[in-house]
Amino acid sequence: MITMIKDMAPSFSKGVKLSIGDDGSVVEIEKGMELVTVLDSMTLGTHYLPQTTPDSIGHKIFAVNLSDMAAMGAKPKWAHLSLSLPQADKSWIEKFIKGASVLAAKHDLAIIGGDTIQGPEMISLSIQGLVKKSKYISRTNAKTGDLVYVTGHLGSAAFGLHLLQLGKNKPTEFIQAYDFPEPRVGEGIFLSNYASSMIDISDGLHADLSKLTKASNVGFNVSIDRLPIRKDMFDHFNPDEAISMTLSGGDDYELCFTIPQKMKDGFEQKWNEKFNTRLSHIGVITESTSGYKFNGDDYMIETKNFEHF
Amino acid sequence: MITMIKDMAPSFSKGVKLSIGDDGSVVEIEKGMELVTVLDSMTLGTHYLPQTTPDSIGHKIFAVNLSDMAAMGAKPKWAHLSLSLPQADKSWIEKFIKGASVLAAKHDLAIIGGDTIQGPEMISLSIQGLVKKSKYISRTNAKTGDLVYVTGHLGSAAFGLHLLQLGKNKPTEFIQAYDFPEPRVGEGIFLSNYASSMIDISDGLHADLSKLTKASNVGFNVSIDRLPIRKDMFDHFNPDEAISMTLSGGDDYELCFTIPQKMKDGFEQKWNEKFNTRLSHIGVITESTSGYKFNGDDYMIETKNFEHF
Repeated sequence: MITMIKDMAPSFSKGVKLSIGDDGSVVEIEKGMELVTVLDSMTLGTHYLPQTTPDSIGHKIFAVNLSDMAAMGAKPKWAHLSLSLPQADKSWIEKFIKGASVLAAKHDLAIIGGDTIQGPEMISLSIQGLVKKSKYISRTNAKTGDLVYVTGHLGSAAFGLHLLQLGKNKPTEFIQAYDFPEPRVGEGIFLSNYASSMIDISDGLHADLSKLTKASNVGFNVSIDRLPIRKDMFDHFNPDEAISMTLSGGDDYELCFTIPQKMKDGFEQKWNEKFNTRLSHIGVITESTSGYKFNGDDYMIETKNFEHF
Repeated sequence: MITMIKDMAPSFSKGVKLSIGDDGSVVEIEKGMELVTVLDSMTLGTHYLPQTTPDSIGHKIFAVNLSDMAAMGAKPKWAHLSLSLPQADKSWIEKFIKGASVLAAKHDLAIIGGDTIQGPEMISLSIQGLVKKSKYISRTNAKTGDLVYVTGHLGSAAFGLHLLQLGKNKPTEFIQAYDFPEPRVGEGIFLSNYASSMIDISDGLHADLSKLTKASNVGFNVSIDRLPIRKDMFDHFNPDEAISMTLSGGDDYELCFTIPQKMKDGFEQKWNEKFNTRLSHIGVITESTSGYKFNGDDYMIETKNFEHF
């Protein structure tokens, strides 16, 4: 199993002195850089469905952690994987590592350690990344008047999950968004030069923006009509349902961040030069109270709690 | 839950810029140091018993990882914890964190991140440590003629597990060795100045010394009569059984390492000045073939495979 990972996945890169196969890994940290670490776990039922394929599970555990890294504005470097399975199913493991290593290779991430145990199906991953000294972006620094942005489309993964739960397995961009989310790694690194605060959207925009503003001790005002929602969602749901799914659906792995007002024009111009990823300015940071507007009127939201305890 | 960890466990220490409560943690690495990372997981059934108390589980997941760190010769610094539980049982979690944080505090280890999810009972921990540039000890550098040493007593935890499985819960040093193993952290750091190779004994001396010699492309010759076995084990088992448990029982978390012959006297003297931990010189590294001697004669061992897949 460890040998399979070594054979199939990148296990060395610049700075790695000791990789898979010892009691621990050893890396050198470049001068002037700080170490960022994330750790996230996934399990059947809570984070994916019985029919989710092993390559999707492999992709997803890396995507979830890369998304956390992106939200810190840091460059992912090294990963440690812990895999617990009821039995050692070679074909399952091969597909899992395939899904994981395609995404890892795309982001120059080396898998340099971890363990495999016999137990319930459960995957933990820790990713380490580097960021220039004091350039990491936390949740705590949003200021009144800062503009609130999100990347990509929201609610797509939740809609994909909804389709899968209805037994509709025909691949669509929504099911793709649920099974193979694309973490915004390059965007996160770029944002470390602009954003005053940042979080990734894993539990839905409402929950995650609320966490960010709570940590920053401010509020938000978001315009529903500015939310990036794919039009197809309105073919399946009435507007309130589509909006609810957009605000409260989990698994988006988009970034939500704040930009100081005076940087707006320069920031947007650079973004458009650099990325095809959709960028939406959805609202503003307020002094304390939070709420939503729809066509200028106050809008009361229904939030389902998709958060994983 | 996250708040409970923050309140009960040390979550800041020198070098920590951002701790629990954001998308990731941020630390500064001192100049001239390299980063060592270990990641180990535990689950009910494979790594502990249904009756194992939550404080023992909390202690053990930290001990297992600290033991890996010790085997690298590195100083543990920061931990990221992932806890999966079927339900959020406050009393269970409190006891778990108590057991974990007592051991963490003892070794100046700050818990700076992680996650909690709903799922099967499963704990993953990643510990990061520091070692002076190029001073880490791997498994790959044992040389023919180097002396083989182990710390502490062997087989005690396996004997403790055996007693627990017989329903004998009366606390003894053996049950203590199984439930609350003491990682050899200080010893490991000290050994980074002497050992040519090192591994921690988690799957039994035979399996782990075999891994070390395989990684170093050498063999070993170990004297059974030099093994550190507690006398009580011979009251319960015949000699072959006691020796088998000593060589193949898991969960010892002692260190096995090699010392160049010429350093023997100086090393042993410094050890005895510094530690009360028992030190046993049990054998020698050979060019290729491995085996055991008992009172000068070849000794064939029976090994049960206690390894966790």
